[in-house]
Amino acid sequence: MATGLARFGEKPFAHEAVEPEIAIVCAADRQNGNNYEMRRVGAEDAIDALVQGLEAAGLKVDRVMGRNAEQFLKVGAPLEVIGREAERLKLTKLTNLGIDTHFSWDLRDSFVPQPDGALFSRTERYQCLESIIESIEAKTSSPTVLALPGGKGHLEITRGTKAVAALREKGAVTDIFPLHNESQRQELVRHWPFNFLGGTKQPLDDIYSYFGLKVAMYFAFLGYYTTWLVFPAVAGALLHFVDLRSWNSLVPPLFAMVVVMWAVAFLAFWKRYNTELQARWEVNIEQDEVHTTQPWDEPTNEPSHGIAQRPAVDGPSRALQREEWKDRLLTMKNNLVAVGGIFLLQAPYEMLFVYCFHALGGSPFKYVLLGANSGIAGQITKLGSSVAMRLNKTQTFVSKEQEADALVYKTFVIYFLQSFMGFFYYAFYIRDFSMLRSYLFSRLFTNAIIQNITEVGVPIFTFYMSERKARQEEQAEKRETKEKASRSSASRVERESHMPAYVASIGGGAYDGTFDDFLELALQFGVVTMFAGAFPLVALFALVNNLAEIRSDSFKLACTMRRPVPHRVASIGAWLNIFQYLGVIAIVSNCLLLVVIYDEQKTWRIDPGLLVLLIVEHLLLLARNSLAWFIPPVPAWVQAKRERRRRIQQSYLHQSLSGPKDQAYEKLRLAGA
Amino acid sequence: MATGLARFGEKPFAHEAVEPEIAIVCAADRQNGNNYEMRRVGAEDAIDALVQGLEAAGLKVDRVMGRNAEQFLKVGAPLEVIGREAERLKLTKLTNLGIDTHFSWDLRDSFVPQPDGALFSRTERYQCLESIIESIEAKTSSPTVLALPGGKGHLEITRGTKAVAALREKGAVTDIFPLHNESQRQELVRHWPFNFLGGTKQPLDDIYSYFGLKVAMYFAFLGYYTTWLVFPAVAGALLHFVDLRSWNSLVPPLFAMVVVMWAVAFLAFWKRYNTELQARWEVNIEQDEVHTTQPWDEPTNEPSHGIAQRPAVDGPSRALQREEWKDRLLTMKNNLVAVGGIFLLQAPYEMLFVYCFHALGGSPFKYVLLGANSGIAGQITKLGSSVAMRLNKTQTFVSKEQEADALVYKTFVIYFLQSFMGFFYYAFYIRDFSMLRSYLFSRLFTNAIIQNITEVGVPIFTFYMSERKARQEEQAEKRETKEKASRSSASRVERESHMPAYVASIGGGAYDGTFDDFLELALQFGVVTMFAGAFPLVALFALVNNLAEIRSDSFKLACTMRRPVPHRVASIGAWLNIFQYLGVIAIVSNCLLLVVIYDEQKTWRIDPGLLVLLIVEHLLLLARNSLAWFIPPVPAWVQAKRERRRRIQQSYLHQSLSGPKDQAYEKLRLAGA
Repeated sequence: MATGLARFGEKPFAHEAVEPEIAIVCAADRQNGNNYEMRRVGAEDAIDALVQGLEAAGLKVDRVMGRNAEQFLKVGAPLEVIGREAERLKLTKLTNLGIDTHFSWDLRDSFVPQPDGALFSRTERYQCLESIIESIEAKTSSPTVLALPGGKGHLEITRGTKAVAALREKGAVTDIFPLHNESQRQELVRHWPFNFLGGTKQPLDDIYSYFGLKVAMYFAFLGYYTTWLVFPAVAGALLHFVDLRSWNSLVPPLFAMVVVMWAVAFLAFWKRYNTELQARWEVNIEQDEVHTTQPWDEPTNEPSHGIAQRPAVDGPSRALQREEWKDRLLTMKNNLVAVGGIFLLQAPYEMLFVYCFHALGGSPFKYVLLGANSGIAGQITKLGSSVAMRLNKTQTFVSKEQEADALVYKTFVIYFLQSFMGFFYYAFYIRDFSMLRSYLFSRLFTNAIIQNITEVGVPIFTFYMSERKARQEEQAEKRETKEKASRSSASRVERESHMPAYVASIGGGAYDGTFDDFLELALQFGVVTMFAGAFPLVALFALVNNLAEIRSDSFKLACTMRRPVPHRVASIGAWLNIFQYLGVIAIVSNCLLLVVIYDEQKTWRIDPGLLVLLIVEHLLLLARNSLAWFIPPVPAWVQAKRERRRRIQQSYLHQSLSGPKDQAYEKLRLAGA
Repeated sequence: MATGLARFGEKPFAHEAVEPEIAIVCAADRQNGNNYEMRRVGAEDAIDALVQGLEAAGLKVDRVMGRNAEQFLKVGAPLEVIGREAERLKLTKLTNLGIDTHFSWDLRDSFVPQPDGALFSRTERYQCLESIIESIEAKTSSPTVLALPGGKGHLEITRGTKAVAALREKGAVTDIFPLHNESQRQELVRHWPFNFLGGTKQPLDDIYSYFGLKVAMYFAFLGYYTTWLVFPAVAGALLHFVDLRSWNSLVPPLFAMVVVMWAVAFLAFWKRYNTELQARWEVNIEQDEVHTTQPWDEPTNEPSHGIAQRPAVDGPSRALQREEWKDRLLTMKNNLVAVGGIFLLQAPYEMLFVYCFHALGGSPFKYVLLGANSGIAGQITKLGSSVAMRLNKTQTFVSKEQEADALVYKTFVIYFLQSFMGFFYYAFYIRDFSMLRSYLFSRLFTNAIIQNITEVGVPIFTFYMSERKARQEEQAEKRETKEKASRSSASRVERESHMPAYVASIGGGAYDGTFDDFLELALQFGVVTMFAGAFPLVALFALVNNLAEIRSDSFKLACTMRRPVPHRVASIGAWLNIFQYLGVIAIVSNCLLLVVIYDEQKTWRIDPGLLVLLIVEHLLLLARNSLAWFIPPVPAWVQAKRERRRRIQQSYLHQSLSGPKDQAYEKLRLAGA
């Protein structure tokens, strides 16, 4: 440890069998052969120093040479190192009592383990490991010079310089990404993407422990939604294929009502299932409501007035309230600007496009228009989402997840208009149902094919292209210098580094890849519910698509992409609200559709029928509320579990208070004061 | 203590200055002069024994003779007696940590005090005192005979006989009721009912500590609602009295929209205010969600599998789920039967009545019909509410409050139909707006007068009648025996015993008097919001009425009624939902009203106008949801307070865990296991 890159106060721990979890990619050092004389006297190799620093922090580092002289550091950590870091970070973690507290390695038995028996969840492990790596710093008393790889010059470090950040800035460290765990991944692959006959069955617990909560929540939702789709798919197929003779005209209203109520019931049951998942994976909801310090939050160590104070709306509370309302108004302004702007810009454009598309009829220019549109629409989406992101930046958010949610709402409007303007145009303006049906059909069918191809094919293609490039470079290298012939086959870590990351198509990689997947589901849900009356088969197509989607999405995550950075969320967040809004829109649009269907003279004047439909619409809206009431979001067994935990808390508190008297008193007084 | 009526293990405490809080009324002992020979040898006077028993339990008993030889026992308790009873009852109470635990007298400093500094809330004190009184029991080893007052014979008690229950059964104890605290009451009267210029200002904290949470919540709501009424009242008056010339026809839709959105905003802000009140009065919401043992709840001391177990839906959970759905279906069946039955029975009747009433025109038979109707309607209400109560009995409820809520929903339908059928008839069938207006006006105006008279006048009348009866009896007595002339003026406790109790008009005294008061407000809210378009002045009348209502209701509670039994609730419960439903109905009914107003040819065919109104209706429904989203129910300062408390919990738990190591470990292990 010549340079002494290490973390303060950390000692190396006895190495146990540890799996590498993070890869650090260092720049290729191809020129170090002929550039050796350029290295300053006494300058140490930067990568060597980094490895020493990582090892000094107790991490296990596996150094792999790439085919083109890049170096890959595979970093893992023994449990105790993670635990000590969690303690240092003051990570809050659920105890057996059901209350969170700062993790402490000595008290590790008091914390609730994961469903698979591990002490830390995937998210916690990753967070700690990343924090350890980022906090490696120089410990030397005098400035030291490190020689950077790839002829990138030298880096002078002084005491306290964060090594990884400095190396990254200089281009010596090019990437840091989470590594797949080969044995767990193989196990997952066997039961998940290739389980073609599994229907909607997925190993959710394994997905949770391998990918973290956010990805698991997405797949839980996808599976649950697909299972529920069976009902409208079967009903729709029966109504479509069985000839009901004189009753045939009743099919559209009947099916529309069935689908609309189905959507409401599905979402209510999903909330319930979500609560069950939270209980199963021990997600403490209270914690997730507010999990970072709020801007208006007072620091705890400030001399507080005590909990028992008279908590009327006093001075600071008033200030808080002002702050709160200012924030609310800003949010509203932003939302209005974003949604209004998008609507005003995009709606006329989409209208124009659909109009032109319709006017062109069978002309071949149609396809030119289609191609031009997809380009323009992409630009508009980009513009809109960047505006939304900029607006988002002006707001203060309680958490990263809340920030992402705010963006979800804004950008969904763009996609909604893009996708549904055509439907609305055909349904309510042109009123051509055969065209609407073919539009629906082509949309669903082409979407299904295109998406599944892009989701599986594009990552594979990207992967092979970058693999090929690496191989070509390697061969070019080989021709120059014959000595490196031994490093011919690419290592696993090098191949993973060529895989694409699981990030959203908007936001420049700042957001999670679940954004795109949920977007796809939400648009599909909209098609299924909003135009049910016009095309009963739509649910069947959605079902078939989703059954394929489960397998292709899981293949994408488990086989063709880098392991995603895990995130901890309590629910599907903003998407639930979007689905619920779509459910309400569906009630209105189906009723409107029925008006259009029965109004054959196109006069908008079918008074008795219209009245009946209006009453039906209001009854459906009423039924929606009643059904949501009928299905309680918290199942009895979760309620019983919470109650049990609450009683344990009470009795523990009682014991702890009445234990060593003076101490407990002082503690609570301290706490109360 | 000859008979030894006492509670096990209780010692009398040194008497401090205690206020009497409960009165026990014992039967008149008028005949004891001439019936003395009938008393068995060795039999002790029952009342003497009861007083001795109460005193042995540490209570302070003040014995007051009534004018007609009844005896009133005014019972109070020193703080420590209440505290010990709370400990015995295992009353859960909020600690400084924000977690409830069983109260313990020795740890009393660890519990959050009331806003007025007292250790126990009014509800808790009352609960404990009542429990002490009810648990007075015989301690003698051999059976003892007590002579009952009023020649009601003798009562033989053995060890363990509950004295009060036995005496009540024999008719020796005729009543037990909470006593007013004269000095606090005087203070309250000064700042509350007689503060005529106070507008909506009320001493809510004092009301809370004197009457308990439920009554305080009602008055908080009444005050808040009245304050909010100022806005539509002023807007309505302006629109009504200012001549807008050609814009006059825009008044109805404008005002309707204003009122509808006002209703939504008001309810959203009330939720927020409710949360603030909860924080101010330290109502722990979690506790109030489930505060009795659920039928499916496992006992805590059973060998549990530990919290850390894999909590998938296993055997017992499945059983719970079955139980839960059975319960849900029963609830739904009951609600459908109740609401459907009421609707089918009452709607035609009300229709018939309004039809006849209208058909009679100016004939004097109208008034006969009106009289007959009020009698019949009363009977129907009685029948309906008794059916609702019987249906309610078949269900299992988590708490007494939830049971009351279920009844509120069912009975509200009856009152809703009774009150609004006439309005609907005039508005949408007859379509005579001047008649609707006069109907609205007469209803609001007569209601206001009649209700304020009955609420204040009837209790006073009842009080004077029973006072008069007592005085007459006393005089009759006096004529017989001259010896009792000294007890001529009635004592305070005797006068209170003649006051009516604050109970609901339905349910035979089983429910709280807030039922009637909320019902009145809900019907008024319905009138104000549902027909806003037809009569802009309606809010002004409601405002004036409510300003009077605040004072008359408070006068009723503070001056003319017995002190009510206190109840602990977290919110206004079912009424909030009813108000919200009325808000939605108002959107629909106002739009319908506008259709009727603009449809002057009475053809139900105003296509472009109808379309506009339909769009407006849907926009209003949409705006309703957005507004409810815009106003967060938990204010920032409450959120900050919760967060602070949560952090204190965490650090306390951390300290307590890492304190005396082995002990803390064992405790948590015990808790977790």
